[in-house]
Amino acid sequence: MTLPIEALQEHTAINMYKTKAYGAAAATSSMAALTIPRRDPGERDVQIDVLFCGICHSDLHQVRNEWKSVAPTVYPCVPGHEIVGRVAKVGTAVKKFKVGDLAAVGCLVDTDQTCHECQAGLEQFCGNLTLTYNSPDKHLGGVTYGGYAESIVVDHRFVLRIPPNLDLAGTAPLLCAGITTYSPMRHWGVTKGKKVGVVGLGGLGHMAVKFAHALGAHVVVFTTSPNKKDDALRLGADEVVISRDANEMKKQTGSFDFILDAVSADHDINVYIELLRRDGTITLVGAPEKPLAVAAFGLLFGRRSLSGSPIGGIPETQEMLDFCSAHHITSDVEVIPIQKVNEAYDRLLKSDVKYRFSIDMASLKT
Amino acid sequence: MTLPIEALQEHTAINMYKTKAYGAAAATSSMAALTIPRRDPGERDVQIDVLFCGICHSDLHQVRNEWKSVAPTVYPCVPGHEIVGRVAKVGTAVKKFKVGDLAAVGCLVDTDQTCHECQAGLEQFCGNLTLTYNSPDKHLGGVTYGGYAESIVVDHRFVLRIPPNLDLAGTAPLLCAGITTYSPMRHWGVTKGKKVGVVGLGGLGHMAVKFAHALGAHVVVFTTSPNKKDDALRLGADEVVISRDANEMKKQTGSFDFILDAVSADHDINVYIELLRRDGTITLVGAPEKPLAVAAFGLLFGRRSLSGSPIGGIPETQEMLDFCSAHHITSDVEVIPIQKVNEAYDRLLKSDVKYRFSIDMASLKT
Repeated sequence: MTLPIEALQEHTAINMYKTKAYGAAAATSSMAALTIPRRDPGERDVQIDVLFCGICHSDLHQVRNEWKSVAPTVYPCVPGHEIVGRVAKVGTAVKKFKVGDLAAVGCLVDTDQTCHECQAGLEQFCGNLTLTYNSPDKHLGGVTYGGYAESIVVDHRFVLRIPPNLDLAGTAPLLCAGITTYSPMRHWGVTKGKKVGVVGLGGLGHMAVKFAHALGAHVVVFTTSPNKKDDALRLGADEVVISRDANEMKKQTGSFDFILDAVSADHDINVYIELLRRDGTITLVGAPEKPLAVAAFGLLFGRRSLSGSPIGGIPETQEMLDFCSAHHITSDVEVIPIQKVNEAYDRLLKSDVKYRFSIDMASLKT
Repeated sequence: MTLPIEALQEHTAINMYKTKAYGAAAATSSMAALTIPRRDPGERDVQIDVLFCGICHSDLHQVRNEWKSVAPTVYPCVPGHEIVGRVAKVGTAVKKFKVGDLAAVGCLVDTDQTCHECQAGLEQFCGNLTLTYNSPDKHLGGVTYGGYAESIVVDHRFVLRIPPNLDLAGTAPLLCAGITTYSPMRHWGVTKGKKVGVVGLGGLGHMAVKFAHALGAHVVVFTTSPNKKDDALRLGADEVVISRDANEMKKQTGSFDFILDAVSADHDINVYIELLRRDGTITLVGAPEKPLAVAAFGLLFGRRSLSGSPIGGIPETQEMLDFCSAHHITSDVEVIPIQKVNEAYDRLLKSDVKYRFSIDMASLKT
């Protein structure tokens, strides 16, 4: 599939180039090779040759138009917001990157930069944000295309530095799974001396365990799968509780300062609310489709909170990458060629990955 | 109805006296006069002649055994935890009260005094608390009896001072409705410059409006009843929004720092979550019977929290009474004789009171 780039070009003063990508032509289509336009980098832009791109569950939802009520998909859809690569070109006003540098891009490629949230470095809460894919493209019209591509062009303010000691394939998922779990832990004060629960040991959960452990907390993993126990301990958990064991759960009542709930399937949140101490918080980073049934008494007794948290701001994303460098943290990944992305999506639905797929984008050239 | 006090006396070394009270003999009984035992005040106790006792919705729930799954009622049940009165006797170790002083008692009459929560002055979170009624009575056996009585005997550490300028009938409801709304506002930082919502204008809600206004916040009342508008403004609201008006609700999107939800009927919490700013909190002080259906996206976008808060600790209850004195705040009450308590309960179910019943306990002598 090739977009009519020449026709697009006629409607904009911005010069474009073509790049290979992988995307879906419709909600029911498999992912396949296509060619997409990118703008030539402007003075504030960085053009990045993509080396690895992580696969996020959001990619699957968006490609299949499963969020049509809140964020309907425009096709073709090229997903990918866990991007690491090497700088190929920089605009004249870009000082912090030079050709050849490693660079990363997460879920955001632009915001208004002027609002209260942007000023505070909390770009994730800007009311005018441009997501890395499926957002209106201010430069070229149409929508933005993500990181399942040979290259991407991004405003330098949304490009992150990658510390040199990090494995690149395992770094890609840090840009979404990493910051999504790191940010709430920092916000709700996870430190040494705190008891932290992680519900669900998948892509997000396994990062949460690594971060909570590195931050010095006592980490308890809740999982429905007894066979994940050894892995949870290896990742940094101090205890593993099989959440179907009511007795084991009861022993943990009222003991947690913070619980990160990374389960997007329908589940009973009240049993976890009961595990919180006074003033404890359970934070959702996954978004179950159906509303959660929340018993008021669980919140009242103990002045507990149920909250949510989305990704993180740009300064905090850089902080997270630097923290990963200092603590030798990357995501556990299975590296795949782009040609296996459809198979990977099917396996994702079965949670058959430890713990994140990272696409080796060199495969796109073959 | 008279309890066999002489028989009780045989089983304890503590001396008792009899006092008139009003209570229910069974879940289906009307409230009626009865005689109950009180312990003679020990060295740390204060004996109080009850002057006024507020009627809390909890009284009704407990008397009718509507909380049987969490707190089954033991009969006879003498409710009342919004107590103001005058000190009649003090134990030898009591220094902060003398005979003739005004004094108040709220929802708690004892805790273990040794745990972390008690040490922090957060007695409401103690794991071993004795509620003012329907809790095991450590001194006499059976259960504690509340403030619908001629007198009550309470450990001095759970007795509050009443500032001299407060109207006593309107002070009684401060001991539960007051502290229940004051405490979360203090905890979540309601101050000048904050925008605060109050959902539901009843016994709790009307106190919340007064406190939020006195704390300097911009106060918006949400009500389903257009005819409550004038009253809301009189109580201190800056704006009143009719919550059934979707357009009016939408105008408030993303603008609140804090919302206090005082509605115990089933209602859609998500429309209020959407009204919170980034990092805003909505706190439940009423407890709807059915679980609330909470959409995760509303919490995720904006890093918002849904929380709950029960009453307050003893130091904060005293702080609240002193705040009321400084700001000339009492509850708006309808004073009734004890003989009208059954009628008052019926009216409470229809929200037919502005805004709290206060029982003139002198009526019990007639």
